[in-house]
Amino acid sequence: MVTLLTDFGIKDPYAAMMKGVILSMNPRASIIDISHQVPAGAVSQAAWILRETYPYFPKGTVHVAVVDPGVGTERRGIVAVIGAHLFVGPDNGIFWPMIEASHEARVIHLCNGRYFLQDVSATFHGRDIFAPVAGRLSQGADPFHMGPIIHDPVPLKTPVPGIRGGSLYGRVIRVDRFGNLISNIRRMDMEGFLKGGMGRIRIGDLCLDGLHKTYGQVPAGEPVALFGSSGYLEIAVNRGRAVDRTGVAPGEIIDREIEVSQAAENGHHS
Amino acid sequence: MVTLLTDFGIKDPYAAMMKGVILSMNPRASIIDISHQVPAGAVSQAAWILRETYPYFPKGTVHVAVVDPGVGTERRGIVAVIGAHLFVGPDNGIFWPMIEASHEARVIHLCNGRYFLQDVSATFHGRDIFAPVAGRLSQGADPFHMGPIIHDPVPLKTPVPGIRGGSLYGRVIRVDRFGNLISNIRRMDMEGFLKGGMGRIRIGDLCLDGLHKTYGQVPAGEPVALFGSSGYLEIAVNRGRAVDRTGVAPGEIIDREIEVSQAAENGHHS
Amino acid sequence: MVTLLTDFGIKDPYAAMMKGVILSMNPRASIIDISHQVPAGAVSQAAWILRETYPYFPKGTVHVAVVDPGVGTERRGIVAVIGAHLFVGPDNGIFWPMIEASHEARVIHLCNGRYFLQDVSATFHGRDIFAPVAGRLSQGADPFHMGPIIHDPVPLKTPVPGIRGGSLYGRVIRVDRFGNLISNIRRMDMEGFLKGGMGRIRIGDLCLDGLHKTYGQVPAGEPVALFGSSGYLEIAVNRGRAVDRTGVAPGEIIDREIEVSQAAENGHHS
Repeated sequence: MVTLLTDFGIKDPYAAMMKGVILSMNPRASIIDISHQVPAGAVSQAAWILRETYPYFPKGTVHVAVVDPGVGTERRGIVAVIGAHLFVGPDNGIFWPMIEASHEARVIHLCNGRYFLQDVSATFHGRDIFAPVAGRLSQGADPFHMGPIIHDPVPLKTPVPGIRGGSLYGRVIRVDRFGNLISNIRRMDMEGFLKGGMGRIRIGDLCLDGLHKTYGQVPAGEPVALFGSSGYLEIAVNRGRAVDRTGVAPGEIIDREIEVSQAAENGHHS
Repeated sequence: MVTLLTDFGIKDPYAAMMKGVILSMNPRASIIDISHQVPAGAVSQAAWILRETYPYFPKGTVHVAVVDPGVGTERRGIVAVIGAHLFVGPDNGIFWPMIEASHEARVIHLCNGRYFLQDVSATFHGRDIFAPVAGRLSQGADPFHMGPIIHDPVPLKTPVPGIRGGSLYGRVIRVDRFGNLISNIRRMDMEGFLKGGMGRIRIGDLCLDGLHKTYGQVPAGEPVALFGSSGYLEIAVNRGRAVDRTGVAPGEIIDREIEVSQAAENGHHS
Repeated sequence: MVTLLTDFGIKDPYAAMMKGVILSMNPRASIIDISHQVPAGAVSQAAWILRETYPYFPKGTVHVAVVDPGVGTERRGIVAVIGAHLFVGPDNGIFWPMIEASHEARVIHLCNGRYFLQDVSATFHGRDIFAPVAGRLSQGADPFHMGPIIHDPVPLKTPVPGIRGGSLYGRVIRVDRFGNLISNIRRMDMEGFLKGGMGRIRIGDLCLDGLHKTYGQVPAGEPVALFGSSGYLEIAVNRGRAVDRTGVAPGEIIDREIEVSQAAENGHHS
């Protein structure tokens, strides 16, 4: 099984070329698209999406991620072996959340050209290096034959929630198709901060007292804060779009700060 | 074989998470996307798309449809067994056209938690309930072990063509990528009404006398009425977009009335 | 293995209907989307995409391409047998680049109705003719049983680079998701013209001296000319969009002329 995550879009044939190469190596490979609609060059968004998604795939899955603005320069290609999953792509931080979260991640620098296509272009390593490597890995090839182990994979600067002046601050890391704002604040961050109290959540003009379990617990059109399906604090509007309700321009919502404070005693669910 | 129809879009990893869960249950499942671009929450559009599409799949196919604005509330999850096809999703009318058209549909309320993921979130039953159920069904699990049969599945209010004041009235139920307007008027509705006469079809500013068989029978840029590939009356423009020619704002074209009347004797193909 | 290339988009269920038909014929078929986002009716863009993409698929792959504004008229349906690849679709030039490039292409007119669906609509031969034919071919059916060989497949008018007044002129044939401008000028066209000299490339307001190997060789935001991953001259902007930098309206960039001239001796990389 092989998954693909790229910023190639679905109009151009680039993702299909990668699939053709994988299937030329291993005609029995089952290839699943995670997404090809990562914004061009948005390495950290791709990293977060992969972190959320990969645990739902079976052990042994090979995950290829190609958001690669540095293609053809000195940046390395890598395979990361993490638990029973394999990750193939550029060494630009795209696998950092998985590497950082594991005590036993091993990272291999892809050097052994006999696993690549014969002609490697300077502009499309997804097709010429990562796809053939993934095809071979999906057949059981040993990643440790593909190059030396490295100990300095490129990290990703990931914003971590923090407490300042009595409030917990996190950030919006993704806006999904429904206009839901997904933050980097996990349930345990929030529970540790609130210690059983009720939270007040503020982003831009939007202010919410308390948490709910699901969208339909507030009337249609009303905003709601909850822990989403991946376990992160999420701001939504029941049958509406939270992203349009914050007073923040959509282009500036990613990375925007979310403040969690202790709600006053007489606060009630908004 | 498993098909997926959702309003999740293709930017977010939600559809991929469902695929990962299905493949974790049944690594040999073949998964086909019908569409993930149903407008958010548009249950009846999803229902019509599925009705048009499912007969082209082999017997035994499991169809998962998740357009589910009521996720996490009291609404039930169901499996519908209809002929040799299985349908899995929320009980919100999304399978109603198939249930209504069959004399032997049986509907099961998904209650048996041992077919679900261990942790069921309140916001993503597609991943946590419907995907694992579909994975198990695709392996041959018996749907009747998954919960009790119910006799009151939620119906869909579907507009039916009707005759008023000497005209037959239907509605636009879908605009496709080519700008073609697809109505809910079937060939037999129209033939029963016209009784061999020639029809005049009117929608907004557009008025057409008579029917053709295919787009290319009128000059490029000319509008044409015909029965489309699914057997419904369709308004098109040869090498153009009918949706831009009605004088109706695109946002208001869905559900817009189409009138069919008897054309005058001297009417000719427009 | 079967690939699909259409202008059906991904909102409507048309591509899924084709997949259902293919899988009904051959449940073991592995179906890969090349793209469904070809602009409506853009036969020559589809032809170029297929030409670039098909060589990455294994021998024996069946490629179905349906950009078919003439569906239901007199235009023929064909199978082209080219090397170890099979191509199925309308006879409107969509396979011309492959036919033209091969000395041994054989083209069959699809006449034998026993390979089609029982009811063939006038508006959707992709589903009713090409999909079932592809399903049967993927199982090993003999294409030469499907109809007579023809010797006059419809050609595509493809612009070829040419020399006029001391310059080499080509055209933009595609703009990819990253805003890169892909031309029809191959490396050998350019090397034959420049004879070792340095080229000056001009399109609209943009003028570039010399070629690079990859995007990252110029500073972020700077334009760069290089031979792209398919071997054609490409204009890009490192971490930016070349299409926005030419002064040509995006709607008029396809087919726009690119001029290559001999750069002055003291020219340097821009």
